[in-house]
Formats: sequence, C-alpha cells, structure tokens
Amino acid sequence: MAAAFPEVSKIKYEGPQSKNPLAFRWYDENEVIEGKTMKEHLRFSIVYWHTFRGTGSDPFGPGTAVRPWDDGSPSVENAVKRVRVAFELIEKLGAPYYAFHDRDVSPEGATLAESNKIFDTVVKALKEEQQRTGIKLLWGTANMFSHPRYMHGAATTCNADVFAYAASAVKKCLEVTKELGGENYVFWGGREGYQCQLNTNMKRELDHLAQFFHMAVDYAQKIGFTGQFLIEPKPKEPTKHQYDSDAAACLNFLRAYDLLPHFKLNLETNHATLAGHTMMHELDYAGFQGALGSIDANTGDLLLGWDTDQFPTNYYLTSEIMLMLLKYGGIGTGGVNFDAKVRRESFEPIDLFYAHIGGMDAFAKGLRVAAAIRQEGEFEKFVRERYSSWDSGVGAEVESGKATFETLEAYMLKKGEVAANRSGRQEWLENLFNRYL
Amino acid sequence: MAAAFPEVSKIKYEGPQSKNPLAFRWYDENEVIEGKTMKEHLRFSIVYWHTFRGTGSDPFGPGTAVRPWDDGSPSVENAVKRVRVAFELIEKLGAPYYAFHDRDVSPEGATLAESNKIFDTVVKALKEEQQRTGIKLLWGTANMFSHPRYMHGAATTCNADVFAYAASAVKKCLEVTKELGGENYVFWGGREGYQCQLNTNMKRELDHLAQFFHMAVDYAQKIGFTGQFLIEPKPKEPTKHQYDSDAAACLNFLRAYDLLPHFKLNLETNHATLAGHTMMHELDYAGFQGALGSIDANTGDLLLGWDTDQFPTNYYLTSEIMLMLLKYGGIGTGGVNFDAKVRRESFEPIDLFYAHIGGMDAFAKGLRVAAAIRQEGEFEKFVRERYSSWDSGVGAEVESGKATFETLEAYMLKKGEVAANRSGRQEWLENLFNRYL
Amino acid sequence: MAAAFPEVSKIKYEGPQSKNPLAFRWYDENEVIEGKTMKEHLRFSIVYWHTFRGTGSDPFGPGTAVRPWDDGSPSVENAVKRVRVAFELIEKLGAPYYAFHDRDVSPEGATLAESNKIFDTVVKALKEEQQRTGIKLLWGTANMFSHPRYMHGAATTCNADVFAYAASAVKKCLEVTKELGGENYVFWGGREGYQCQLNTNMKRELDHLAQFFHMAVDYAQKIGFTGQFLIEPKPKEPTKHQYDSDAAACLNFLRAYDLLPHFKLNLETNHATLAGHTMMHELDYAGFQGALGSIDANTGDLLLGWDTDQFPTNYYLTSEIMLMLLKYGGIGTGGVNFDAKVRRESFEPIDLFYAHIGGMDAFAKGLRVAAAIRQEGEFEKFVRERYSSWDSGVGAEVESGKATFETLEAYMLKKGEVAANRSGRQEWLENLFNRYL
Amino acid sequence: MAAAFPEVSKIKYEGPQSKNPLAFRWYDENEVIEGKTMKEHLRFSIVYWHTFRGTGSDPFGPGTAVRPWDDGSPSVENAVKRVRVAFELIEKLGAPYYAFHDRDVSPEGATLAESNKIFDTVVKALKEEQQRTGIKLLWGTANMFSHPRYMHGAATTCNADVFAYAASAVKKCLEVTKELGGENYVFWGGREGYQCQLNTNMKRELDHLAQFFHMAVDYAQKIGFTGQFLIEPKPKEPTKHQYDSDAAACLNFLRAYDLLPHFKLNLETNHATLAGHTMMHELDYAGFQGALGSIDANTGDLLLGWDTDQFPTNYYLTSEIMLMLLKYGGIGTGGVNFDAKVRRESFEPIDLFYAHIGGMDAFAKGLRVAAAIRQEGEFEKFVRERYSSWDSGVGAEVESGKATFETLEAYMLKKGEVAANRSGRQEWLENLFNRYL
Repeated sequence: MAAAFPEVSKIKYEGPQSKNPLAFRWYDENEVIEGKTMKEHLRFSIVYWHTFRGTGSDPFGPGTAVRPWDDGSPSVENAVKRVRVAFELIEKLGAPYYAFHDRDVSPEGATLAESNKIFDTVVKALKEEQQRTGIKLLWGTANMFSHPRYMHGAATTCNADVFAYAASAVKKCLEVTKELGGENYVFWGGREGYQCQLNTNMKRELDHLAQFFHMAVDYAQKIGFTGQFLIEPKPKEPTKHQYDSDAAACLNFLRAYDLLPHFKLNLETNHATLAGHTMMHELDYAGFQGALGSIDANTGDLLLGWDTDQFPTNYYLTSEIMLMLLKYGGIGTGGVNFDAKVRRESFEPIDLFYAHIGGMDAFAKGLRVAAAIRQEGEFEKFVRERYSSWDSGVGAEVESGKATFETLEAYMLKKGEVAANRSGRQEWLENLFNRYL
Repeated sequence: MAAAFPEVSKIKYEGPQSKNPLAFRWYDENEVIEGKTMKEHLRFSIVYWHTFRGTGSDPFGPGTAVRPWDDGSPSVENAVKRVRVAFELIEKLGAPYYAFHDRDVSPEGATLAESNKIFDTVVKALKEEQQRTGIKLLWGTANMFSHPRYMHGAATTCNADVFAYAASAVKKCLEVTKELGGENYVFWGGREGYQCQLNTNMKRELDHLAQFFHMAVDYAQKIGFTGQFLIEPKPKEPTKHQYDSDAAACLNFLRAYDLLPHFKLNLETNHATLAGHTMMHELDYAGFQGALGSIDANTGDLLLGWDTDQFPTNYYLTSEIMLMLLKYGGIGTGGVNFDAKVRRESFEPIDLFYAHIGGMDAFAKGLRVAAAIRQEGEFEKFVRERYSSWDSGVGAEVESGKATFETLEAYMLKKGEVAANRSGRQEWLENLFNRYL
Repeated sequence: MAAAFPEVSKIKYEGPQSKNPLAFRWYDENEVIEGKTMKEHLRFSIVYWHTFRGTGSDPFGPGTAVRPWDDGSPSVENAVKRVRVAFELIEKLGAPYYAFHDRDVSPEGATLAESNKIFDTVVKALKEEQQRTGIKLLWGTANMFSHPRYMHGAATTCNADVFAYAASAVKKCLEVTKELGGENYVFWGGREGYQCQLNTNMKRELDHLAQFFHMAVDYAQKIGFTGQFLIEPKPKEPTKHQYDSDAAACLNFLRAYDLLPHFKLNLETNHATLAGHTMMHELDYAGFQGALGSIDANTGDLLLGWDTDQFPTNYYLTSEIMLMLLKYGGIGTGGVNFDAKVRRESFEPIDLFYAHIGGMDAFAKGLRVAAAIRQEGEFEKFVRERYSSWDSGVGAEVESGKATFETLEAYMLKKGEVAANRSGRQEWLENLFNRYL
Repeated sequence: MAAAFPEVSKIKYEGPQSKNPLAFRWYDENEVIEGKTMKEHLRFSIVYWHTFRGTGSDPFGPGTAVRPWDDGSPSVENAVKRVRVAFELIEKLGAPYYAFHDRDVSPEGATLAESNKIFDTVVKALKEEQQRTGIKLLWGTANMFSHPRYMHGAATTCNADVFAYAASAVKKCLEVTKELGGENYVFWGGREGYQCQLNTNMKRELDHLAQFFHMAVDYAQKIGFTGQFLIEPKPKEPTKHQYDSDAAACLNFLRAYDLLPHFKLNLETNHATLAGHTMMHELDYAGFQGALGSIDANTGDLLLGWDTDQFPTNYYLTSEIMLMLLKYGGIGTGGVNFDAKVRRESFEPIDLFYAHIGGMDAFAKGLRVAAAIRQEGEFEKFVRERYSSWDSGVGAEVESGKATFETLEAYMLKKGEVAANRSGRQEWLENLFNRYL
C-alpha cells in the first residue's frame, strides 16, 4: 500500500529556532528531564476517533475533511486500510501510543455477533501494525452513545436490554484491549446522564451504573486484564447533565459504590472548563486523592459553551498540567492523549500533522517549563513557608490530632487576636511564572 | 419601643383573587396538604444577615437601605434594638423560624473574650423574643469570612492561628445555638477555597477542614447539642474556587473524611445554578443519598455570573423544589430559609415585606402544584412504566446481582438486538407540568 | 396518498380544564383580544427544517427520528411526498404559516442549474398545498451554511466564487419566495463570522456582507418582491463568533452600511440568551428602534452553552414576549415561528404534535396574560409615575432640548441635593406579574 | 513628607534574564520599535481608583489593604497626602500617565458647591505634582455610580434631578480635566442600564443619555476642551444589563444619536470577555470603524462571571492586543491604562509594585512579540493570499460595485461549482504564533 502522507517524513526535533512547521521545536523525545526521557514523561497518544474518523461535520453541516485513503464505506477493507494509514501517521509523529473506541476501528455489523466478528478481523490488522511499529495501545473503550439504541443511555438506560447490549460490548472490548496489550480501559459517560429530570429515576440509574462497573471489574479479573480502569468526567453534552460531571462527582460515586480501589480518572481540559474548573484544579484534586490516571490533552474556548476539543497550544496551560503531573510522580500507566480534532475548516490531511506537532510541542514546552520551575524551587519554597505556622505550635497540635475546640479557645482567649497574615502574593507569583516561559 | 412597621399588620391569607400586596394569595398556614399544614411543610425562616444587616451596598457603591430603627453603630444597644425589630417583622410575616451568623446579631468586640460577652447580652434579647413570639431558631452559624483575619480562609487558612480563632468562634456559636434551641448548625464555606492555585496546598487545607468538622462534631456531642450539622455548597465567590463547590464535592469530602454520618446539605438555588446545576438536580442528588438537610430559598439570574440572592418568585422553580422535598419525605429539621436580599434599589422598609410575601407565596404555590401533581400521579406513573423493563427478566436479574457480563452477552447474542426504545416524551411532560400551574 | 398522522384529528380548543394532550388549553384561534383574533395576533409558523428534516442527530450520534413517510433519499419524489405530510401536520395544528430554507424543501443537484430545476418542481407542490389549505409562507431563506463550499462563510467567505454561488442561491430563493407569496425574506448568518481571528480580515468580510445585502435589496426591487427583509441575530455557533451577534451588532451594521431602511430583525429566544440578553431585552431594544420584524419561538437551557432550540413552554417567557409584541403594535408581517426541535429522545411522529401544541398553548397563555396586564394597567401606571419627574420642571427642560450643562448646574447649585429617589419596587413588580399567571 | 515606599527605587530595565522582582524584564522605555520608543507606544497609565482608593473590600468582607499613608478619613488633608504618594508610585514605575474619577482624588462635600471647592484644592496639588514629575493626565471622569443618589442611574435615571446633578458633576470634571491637560474624557456607564425591565422605559432612558452626551460635547467645545471623548463598554455589573454592553451596542447608539464623530471607545479586556467577546475582537471591530480610542489593561478570570479586574500577565493576551494596536496605527491619544486591582489577599504596599511591574512587562513583551510578527510578515502574507480571489475576476467585480445577483448567477451557472476552498490552517497559525513567544 502506498504511503498516505508521502510528503511527510518522520517529524524531527530541530530546536526552538526552527521555522520548519513539520519539525518539533520543543519535543526532543530522548532528552532526559528529572531522570526520564521526554518520551517517557509524556507518553503521547493519538486518538482514532477524531483523527481517523472525524469528518468535520457539525450540527450545521456535513463533513468537509479530505481523506483520500478512506472510501467512506463501512466495509472491513476500508477499516483495515484505515489502520495502515493510522499507523503511518502515528509513526511519523513518533507518538508511542494510540487509543480507540471499538466502533472507531471496526464497523457495526447487523447483529452483535457479526460486529464482534468484524472486530476480530480489524484487531488482527491492529496487532500487526503494533508489532511492526512498536506503537502501543494506551486504552480501549466501547462507543455506547452513537448508535440510536443508546439514546437513553447505556448502563443508565431505562431499557434493560440496552444495558445488556452495552455489557456485551464492553465485555468484547475488554477482551480486545487485553489482546492488544492495552494499558488502561476507559469509561467516558457518553449518554449516561439525563436530558429531562421529569422522566428520570436518578437513583435507579446510578445503582445500575455501579453494577455495570462492578461487572466490568469482575470480568477483567476473570480474564486477567490488569490494565487500569478510568472514568472520564464531563459535565454536559450530549446530555443536559452527565452523571460523571467532574472529578468530585466521579469520586463521590466511586466511594459511594465501593469502586474507588478499581478506578482512576481520565481528566480532560475541555471537560474541566465546561464544569467550571481549571484543568489544574481537577488534576490537583484527583491527584491528592490518588485518582489521577490519565489526561485527554485538548483545550476548549472559554467563551464557548460546548466541547470544542481544540488542539492545545497554550504554554500556560501545558506548563500547569505538567507541573501537576510531575507533582504526583508522573502520569503512571496513563498518557497525554490528544482527544482533539482539527477544525472543520482545516480539512486537508496535512493539517493533521500541523495540529499534532503543535500539541506535542506545547506539552514538551510545558514539561520544560515545569521542570525548570521545580528545579529552582521558588514556588515550592513560597508555599512551604506560607504554611509554616502548621509545622509547630498550635498548628502542629491540630495536625497531630491533639487539639480540640476547647484547647484552641483557651489558646486564643489568651492570645486575643491572631498572628498577622501575610500577603498571598498572587501577582508576584504570576510574574514569577512568566519568568520560566 | 414603638413598632418599626406600624403600617403593616400581620400578613393574612386572602386567596388567589386578592389584589392586596400585603396579603398572601397562596400561603394559608393552616391548610392541610398531605397530612401536614402548610406551615409544617414549609418551615419558613427569615435570615438575619440580608434582612436586618443588609445595606444595599455593592462593589460599586455604599448602602442605600433606609432603616430608621438602626443608628448604624456597632453598639450593643443598637444590636438589641435590631432584635426587637427583627422579631416584629418575622412575627408579622408569620414565619416560624429565623437564622443568623454570630456577627449578624452581635457586633465584634476588641478581643475574642469581649466578642463572646457581647454575644451573651444579645442572646438574652433573642431568647426573650423567641419566648414572647414562639419563633424558633432554624440554625446558627459563625461568620468566618468577613473579618480581614479570615482573608486566606478559616479552617483552610495557611495561618494556624486563624484556625484556632475560627474554632473558638464555632465553639461559642454552637453553645449559643444550643442555648437558643437551634435545630441545625450550618457551615457555609465562606473563604474556604482558593484565589490562586499557585500558592495553595489543597490537600493540607482539606485535611484541616476535616479536622475542624470532626472537632465540631465532638464538641457538639460533649455539650449535648443534638441539632443537625449542615454544609452549604457553593462553587465560587468570594474565592475563585470554593472547596464545597456543589453537592457532589461536599459528599465526596464527607465520605473521604468519615464525616457523612454527621452532616447533611443545605442547598441553595443560586449556588446550584452557579455550579451549572438546576436546584432540582441538587435536591434529587442529595436526596437519594440521604443528605438532604435544608434549603436556602432564593434565585439567581442565569444571565449573571455572581450570587444575586434574589427572592424566589418563579412558580416553576418552587414547584420543582417542593416536588423534590415531598419526594424525600419533607425537609425534616431543615427549613425554607430566605437567603435572599431586596435589590439595592428597593431600599424602603416596606420592600422587605413585599419581598418575603412574594417568596412565601411562591413556595406555597409550589407546594400546591407539587401536591396536585403527586395526587394525580401522572408523572410517577410515566416514570414507573419507563423503567418497567427492570422489574422482570434481564433487568431484574441485573438488579438482583445475578447477572454478569457473560450472562448478559449470552442473552444478547441470542436476542441479536435490543427491544425497541420508547420516546422520552420530554415535550409532553413539560406540557403536563403546565397543566398544574 | 394516505394520511401520515391518521390517529390525529385537527387540534381543537378545549379550555384550561382539558386533560387531552392533543387539544389546546389556551389557544382559541377565533377568540378576540385587543381587537384581533388570537390567530391574527400570533401568526404561528411551522418550520420545515427541524420539523420535517430534523433527524435527531447530534455531535455524538446519528438520527433517531422515526418518520415512516420519508425514505431518506435525496430524490425529488421523496421531497414532494414530504410536502404533503408537512401540510397535513400544519393543517391539523391550525397554524397559518410555514417557513423554509431552499434546501429543506428541495434537494441539492449536481450543479446550480440542476438544483434550481429541482427547486421549481418542489415549489409547484408547495404552491398546490398552499392553495389547497390556505396556509401561507411566512418566509423563505437560503441555506448557505451546510454545504462544504460554505465552510468559510457565504457572503463573508474568503473565496469570491462562493460569494457568487451564494448570490445565485439567494436570487433563486427570492424568486421562489415571491412566487409563493412569502411575506418576508430572512438572512440568518449561518457561517458569516469567524473561527479564528488570525486568518480573518473582518472589515473586508463585513464590506462584502453589506454589498450582498444591497444586491438583495436591489434585486427584490427589480422583481417586485415587497416582503420584509429580516436579519436574525445569533452570537456564536457554528462559528466561534457570528457577525450578527445580537440586535445591537445587527443594527450597528445596518446603520453603518445604509441598510437600516430595508431590514428588520428576526429575534430568537435561544440566540438572545446565548448573547447574554433576555429575549425581552432584545425585543424592547429592537422595538424602540423600529426594527422588530418577527420572532423565532423557542427556548434554550440557560445552563447549557449551545443552541438547544427547545420548544417554549414557560409562561413567564411567553408572557414577556407577548407584552413586548403588544407594546410595539404586534408582530406586523412577522410571525411566531417555531424554530424548535423535538429532543433526540422524542423520536416518534406524535411527539411533533405534543411539542407544537405545547408551544402554541404557551404563547396563547402568554397573550392572555399580557392582555390582562395591559388591561389592568398597573405596570404601565407604575412606570409612568416612576418617570414623572421628566414631564415637567427640569426634566421637561432637558427633554425639550432647552437645558445645558450650565443651566443644570445653576439649578443644582441652588438646590444643593437631588429630590429623593423612590424604591424601584422590583420585588413588588415580580409579585404583581405572578398575579396574572 | 517622607517617602511612602522608601524601599523601592525607580524600577529599571534589567533584561529577560533578571530575577529581580522589582525590575523590568521586557519594558525598556527608550527602546525603539517601529519608529517609536516603547514608552511612546504603550503610554502606560496608573489608575487612581484601584491603586490609591482600593481597600480590598468585597461583597463578603471589608477592606484588608495596609496603606500607612492613608488615615482613612474623608479630609482634604488626607486627599492631598494621597496625591503625593500616588505620584511617588507612578514616578517610580516610570508610567507617563494617570487617570481618575473626580471622587477618587477629591472627597464629596455636603453640597455640590462644597464638593467643587474641595475638588479645586486637590486639583492644585495634582497640578503641582504633574509639573514636578512630568506625569500627565490620560483622562478624567466623574463617578456617577457610587453615591446613593445614582441608584437608578445618572443620565439614564428616572429622577430628573439626578440627571441635573450628574450634568453638574461632568461639567466640573470637564473643567478640571482641561485644567490638568487631560488628553481624553471617559464615560463608563456606571449604573446606566437596568436591574429590572418591568420598571424601565428603555427608549426614554437612552434618549436622555444621548442628550447628556450632546451637552457634554457642546460644553467641551465652549470651554475649549479638545481632548477625545471615550465611551467604555461593559455588559453587566453593577446593573443586570448595562446599555453600553459592548463595542457594537456603543457604536449603534453613537450612530443612532449622531454622536459618532465625537466619541471613540475605551475598551477593556474583562468587559469584553464578560460580553462574550475576546479583547482582540473588540479591538478589531472598533478599529476598522475608526473608533479605537484607548484601552483598560486588565484581565478577567474566564471561569468567573464578574469583573475581577486582575492585572494582565498573559503574554498571548498582551501580544494580541498589541498586534491590534499596531495594526490600527497605535493608540493615539489613548493609553494602556491599568484598570486592575491587587487581590484582596495581596494587601501589602509592595504588592502594588509587583502588580504593575508584571502588567507593564507583559505589555512590553506583547509589543515585542507583535512587532516581531509584523516584521516577519507571515501572518499578513497568509491572510493576504487567503483573500486573493477578491483582488481580480469576479471578486474584484463585486468589490468595485459592478456585480449584481444577475451577473453573479450568470457567472456561476456557467462555472457550475465554486473554485476549491483552501484550509483555514488554524492549527498551523496557532503554532506559528507560539514561535514568536
């Protein structure tokens, strides 16, 4: 098969001065930072859905994307051809991982059995390409939101048959993910939520969702799939209200239903901001609770209220993300997964390269900034000193559990008023951040 | 002391046809609905802060409110005079409850000891008025956000002394709440959150917050305070990010730190919408988890991004709230607490009456609508049928815990495709809702 | 041809007590209010796009709608069959108007010439149905956003050929609209805006847009089309920033390019709220500038950031809209056009009836409320008195143009301080509004 | 009088490698870029309100700011002392301009006459300091929103006396601005808008506003004030809806009331984003209409819905702003005015320096980036080529006014379909932008 992108060679690192739009300026995969290569730190992953199945359609018009290798048919041949192209692109980008939904790689058949059979055929091609290139599967997931059967949800549907269908789909996808050596398995809520509270039994739906997850955990154990399970928070879209609305909602659910030991979170910038949080907040919040699993790397437009899934290019954003990842010891078995799509107007194949190169470079730059910040230690020092009153005296008594309301009142009645506060220095800290950019 | 509102008599129920703006059209306190009087259902509460301490100031100008009884001084005499006026208004409105922060009723002294002493004097007056009128204390709380000492938070401050001061304040306020027979004790986060993530140790702050709550629980037990503890979610303002951002964040926190048995939630409409949720969502979400404690009755302006705390007058909103309260067996020891303020331009004393009458009537109307909906049972029937596939067959097997991914796959492989979905009927349900208005 | 909705008879008015979901409770088309029938006041219009071409697809899944009469093909026969069904539905609803984009009624051909020819065939069927039923065309418009050629805009495209194509499409659509007796011609911006400011020449694009509109005005004059031209504001979606972002942006554009005499506005609730305005604001703002042309009747979800185009059922909203329409002497040649779609989960044909019945009833209720408010005159009286200081004295001097900064200073230096303000009485007014509901 | 900031010397440029938080890294006032010094390009201005009158109060607590030179009294002596401190800070920062509201610099007296007299005293001190330091007045304005008399607006009030008072205040402030050599006079809407549409006569209010502005223009002409009049858009806060909601609303108003020749716009980042626009949009939109007058340099938090007025430190933002200013030939008589305040938690005097240094450096960096982008010309070239179809052929015919719908249809019928579109290259352009950072 001829190359789909004959005009593009493997993308190389050329350094910050490079003006070559098909080279990296910041991503030097072998450069060592804090004891690991950039490649090991960033664990970049290319998504199958946007990059190989996205057409550029939007609610106001059909697709625009020019993809000469794709005949648009739901045939198995077309699906396999797409696999070859996908691996060509991933390889040229030098990304070590990819991720998919079952239906991204493999078309739906007339019955569940047929769908599974087609899937097996495509999986064979994926496996070949993985072996040929060394590219690995970051995670698999099942698309349980596109087909009309899922209109009322999958695990949270009012139609018990649909739950059964979804269970079958996840069963198969778990098997495939194991087969392909996938390092994680992700649940993004899809249509798990509600459009209308008047017709919804929230408790019953969430009980079902928990049962679904427990079944998945059990089945994974049974087949020996040892990858990490991940839940991906998102507050809205397609439903008016998604149950997994943000990290807090996911963690509360996991704790309430005894699922916390089995799941971590796959956090996404655009989902965080739609929920009213910064990505940095969600990372820190999940991180200190031991639930930071992986990230979907994209950005939203904060003036728009829907999931734009744009490629991340903002150095502030990527530096903040990398600061958090380094703080919590790295991304573990997760990755920096480009859940991002080229704009509908960026319809040429070459735009796929520009987009990913920009995103990879932005994260590499973010990693460099974060590492420099950590090396100088000014932020850490400031924060440590800011909380130093907790390291001794009354603060230490509280932290050690010795204090009560009564001992604290006695202390304060004697002292009368608190020790003076110190400035929070937000402006100084923001300036300091700029110094590393 | 002369009446502060001589022109206003006790507000009476005159029925829907009344054109008297100083009468109730829907709130008939003795009318029995679902076995309880409207008064027992609604448990209205008047807040001390907005209604007796609000001045109409905003970030662009000082207060406008005309309050002839208040000399504006921080003297104890003025505070006591204000108590008399407060009870006159509450009595004329016929509300059975009120709620306060310590510093609403009692001015700050030069030291903690002096503040406590002043508080005792005012509490005496409050107790007299409670006894005279039969009006009860719904809840007390300590203001741990206004004084500059709390600039970096109270229980989540970086300054351990401030934690000690806050502990002392809550200790005293718990004692007072007990003394006055308060039925709940509320924690609204105040400045518990962050303005700047770069200077914040989120984990350490949340650990401290949990310790604070545990101390409060312990102390309440010690002094025999048996009221319900409540946490009030709010996503932002005054801080950029409040830790108790919504019901999910509060419940996750309570579960994580073993506080769930001791706390319920005080939900507020305007806080819910600032967090991107409907009030109905927050009520249902807290309700099915057994954490529905009380509500702050107000409304926001959904086109504005700050807490406008407007009086609730929208019948859709109040009907939805009352549907949820009835669904979960009523508000318990909580109440419908008007955490709402007259607009800066509604500066005359009489506006306080118009505002509360409108709010009380709106909730009474909502209660009537909700009760009618429940009596006819059309919504309940629709929802029951919508989920009927879970009552037998494969659905029942899932709910009973017998199903696994394997049994479900076997079932679905045999069946091939799911039983047809049925329309969600959102439009029909919305029309139906209008029928009860 | 057999009826598409055999189970539905013509919808009738049965009064507020009716529990029949296929009857009107408020819309009595012959009832006279303020000298006109409800039918004449409301001028309901059914849209071809959502109601007959909507499939329920969204960015996360394909269509769900069950439409047995539609074979899904782009054939002329299918298009003509759809015309028959459309008129059956409109007739059964008793709506006097409909509205379309060219491509809603008539499929795209291989060339412009072929598209036009197909259009003529369909127009013949439309004309037959109009004559058979008496249903009239409220407005026509050309779809200049769906086809990929319009990816960069139509009149504001960077590709001059696309401008020419769009001009040809509007030329044809104007001819057709005239042929069918259309009372207006609408421009909704479609993709007239930008996704990325870095590649956009805003001035050049807006200059082109103005030229386009001037050409349309000239051509309408030439062919004797006397309908009203309308522009429809919307702030975002599909582009990041639509040029016609709100009423103010449209009017500024029309004034700047000497188009104001030729255009009015077609205002839509969901577009207003996406722009941060209430619909009532947009109506009043356009109204006092003589630019209130027509309305698109729908509602958004204020907690969601995209155009949900839901059917309007909220009585507050419809009452406010009708108050504004009555204030400005009615909707003129415009109409109450249901630019609204059934939810993806409301996929059965009958949902189309429930949805429209609910919307029509909500507007009929709104008309009744507005008329009652106007008849009692309490709001008008309050507002008149609120501004009474402008009717004499220094106010009248200002209004008559006699005052200057110097006369006003002299007046105020003498007076020292202003006459006291009066309460804005917002709470009282909101309560008063509820009295009419 | 002793220095208020003895520990701070004049802030100097030390270059990008400097780690001194009291030095500039990017702002070298004498460096020449595109033919002007950085000082001439940026025309930095320090605001009196936030910087010298801000206390750190917010709706949840009183001020926190430590300002040892200010005794907190409304005395004239205190006001004059504050003038000395203000000029010390401005001089040390090296900013060439400052800006004030009348009541920032000069306290309110018991009557209008007394207020004016006090103002004269303070103006004397301001003049002395201007002469001593060479610092100039960028603009004056009158505070017509803080005093309770303005609760219903100033020029748009329902109380004609308030209009007269406001007219007197502006008259005086115009005289003072002229006296001090102010280069502009600004109107920010303050409370010109509405809280409640039910009590508002929008047309009458806007008619009055226009009369007010015409009087101002007339009076300026009479006294020979030749500075530029500016209007500052803001969509909301303190009112629910400000009339000057964005650039489009302002320009529509100015055109409708024949005020466009006399006014330009003072654009602010945080106001732009609250209105749903980028600052870059507002600048470009005002710019191509010849209405770009000045900018208020700050930033908002896009996840918060109120005007946070934070200091701008984001290089993307400042680069975009500077690109637009250079595109339109510079800021003219306007300036880069820091309408920004230190956070409530940044309460120490030194924070004022950190904050301004960060803001000035961010704009200096932005100027450097913008100039580099312009020098290389890659963006300009891309945009020029993108629109090249308009430079000849059918595009040129449209632009020259020769084309009509008929000629364009003839052209397109012959051609059949449009020339192919080209990718919009958004991702490539965003990467390119990063190259200059």
